[in-house]
Amino acid sequence: MINKRKFIAVIGGGQPSPQEAKLAEEVGHELAKRGAVLVCGGLGGVMEAACRGAQSEGGITIGILPGDNRQAANPYVQIPIVTGLGYARNIAVVKSAQAVIAIGGSYGTLSEISHALQSGIPVIGLNTWSLSRNGQQDNSIIPAQSPIEAVNKALELITEQ
Amino acid sequence: MINKRKFIAVIGGGQPSPQEAKLAEEVGHELAKRGAVLVCGGLGGVMEAACRGAQSEGGITIGILPGDNRQAANPYVQIPIVTGLGYARNIAVVKSAQAVIAIGGSYGTLSEISHALQSGIPVIGLNTWSLSRNGQQDNSIIPAQSPIEAVNKALELITEQ
Amino acid sequence: MINKRKFIAVIGGGQPSPQEAKLAEEVGHELAKRGAVLVCGGLGGVMEAACRGAQSEGGITIGILPGDNRQAANPYVQIPIVTGLGYARNIAVVKSAQAVIAIGGSYGTLSEISHALQSGIPVIGLNTWSLSRNGQQDNSIIPAQSPIEAVNKALELITEQ
Amino acid sequence: MINKRKFIAVIGGGQPSPQEAKLAEEVGHELAKRGAVLVCGGLGGVMEAACRGAQSEGGITIGILPGDNRQAANPYVQIPIVTGLGYARNIAVVKSAQAVIAIGGSYGTLSEISHALQSGIPVIGLNTWSLSRNGQQDNSIIPAQSPIEAVNKALELITEQ
Repeated sequence: MINKRKFIAVIGGGQPSPQEAKLAEEVGHELAKRGAVLVCGGLGGVMEAACRGAQSEGGITIGILPGDNRQAANPYVQIPIVTGLGYARNIAVVKSAQAVIAIGGSYGTLSEISHALQSGIPVIGLNTWSLSRNGQQDNSIIPAQSPIEAVNKALELITEQ
Repeated sequence: MINKRKFIAVIGGGQPSPQEAKLAEEVGHELAKRGAVLVCGGLGGVMEAACRGAQSEGGITIGILPGDNRQAANPYVQIPIVTGLGYARNIAVVKSAQAVIAIGGSYGTLSEISHALQSGIPVIGLNTWSLSRNGQQDNSIIPAQSPIEAVNKALELITEQ
Repeated sequence: MINKRKFIAVIGGGQPSPQEAKLAEEVGHELAKRGAVLVCGGLGGVMEAACRGAQSEGGITIGILPGDNRQAANPYVQIPIVTGLGYARNIAVVKSAQAVIAIGGSYGTLSEISHALQSGIPVIGLNTWSLSRNGQQDNSIIPAQSPIEAVNKALELITEQ
Repeated sequence: MINKRKFIAVIGGGQPSPQEAKLAEEVGHELAKRGAVLVCGGLGGVMEAACRGAQSEGGITIGILPGDNRQAANPYVQIPIVTGLGYARNIAVVKSAQAVIAIGGSYGTLSEISHALQSGIPVIGLNTWSLSRNGQQDNSIIPAQSPIEAVNKALELITEQ
């Protein structure tokens, strides 16, 4: 049963550095190997690299798209969800996951990190944002040093829900 | 490849008549038999009956939920999409499909029919709404007399997109 | 206090007939004369005509826009709300009102009618959709024969909330 | 004309410290004195304090609510916008403004900051989040030391749009 698998979102920018794209591909690959379902925003960059990695291991990939056109999904998305809701789809990306792995990214990624933390969904970070509030470090984004460590932490943090 | 399959939404109320629930189950069953992916709103009633029918044939079922909790999905949803967006999820249900089958239903279903027609997505109706505008019949909802006819029409109407 | 006034949505298409545009302008005019706040989707056609009518009487006009740009509002919108949420803004248009007046319109208008009825918000119709379900007339859309009758009915139907 | 005024969002948490509430009230007061329209999320805490401050100077206050009920608005909201869209309303709060003043706040506020920065809307911060990415400080949130400085900066940063 697919719905017994763990659903993990991979978030990050549409124009990653080559290193970020490589991290994303390895994260996707490892998630698929471990039987997790990959959720993402469905477009290019980190999203595409993660889906490509997952597909190379036969994993399931879900892309939750902002626009009106399923054709906008990257070619490695198997389940395109077409929302027509613009950036509100960012909320659905993280809420559909039980843990989130953030790789690099810009303000769109930061909005997803925020919505996840607001919803109590754990966020693991690879080369991404760090936060402080009123001058105090906020340690909610759990750092990882490698794709495998990120996937390990994401899977461990999913409590039975 | 899942994304080469046809995605069909089944929409209808949470409290269907026994006859409507039976229609929904048969529609779900037939869709799965024909290899289509079932998209729905993920909750009970027509949505649950359609998913149950699809699962009995090993089909893939996607439930796009209005709330914040994946546990709200009916037990036959394999891919729960958690939006937290309330009735705006109705828009994602129909836009994620290439054709829509409406069974009975109340005003929520009517909103989904409207959003589908506005987006140019064909709608097939079983015992559902009919529309007129300024006193003139609007024939956009394509009537079907049986679950199999509804599925046939839905699959035929999906042009290569 | 503005928030003690009655908030009424006027919904209808972007490309109305000349007669529909005239009805909308008169509805807007009458709403303003009666002290109501006009809510609409902020764009052209029926929305613009209603806002123009309201402004000619010094009324307050709110336009809830689907896109990202406040400049898309018609020139008679005083309070542009920029959602970036596409057609999900239709839901906010009707929920922000205590009664809805529908004038003509196509499927977008029908989606707004549906969301209003689903939310228990009264809908008054001028030359607009009529509905039947399973072959039985649904009389939820309250017909009016003139702009003044529509405004009268809308204001009467707002119970203290 | 209201729509010629500057629209400024004030964002921040529902449970601010007494100092943050005081800052918010002063920001609201100063915005109203300067003729700006206040946009906020319509609920309690920073949102209520800012609206109270604005109302004390006769300013216009808009509250864009997440739920289905206009009664959830704080008593100083003059224009309640009822979205029913949950946290997607955060996007509408910032997009409806030409500049944003963030006061304190938790992850919901951070999501609003992110959506504003992603949309190119300037953000001024009072005792709020600060960001770094990949170990490098991101200076997009413009710091202010006082309510008056925050309002000055917000008004200056609104270019003709």
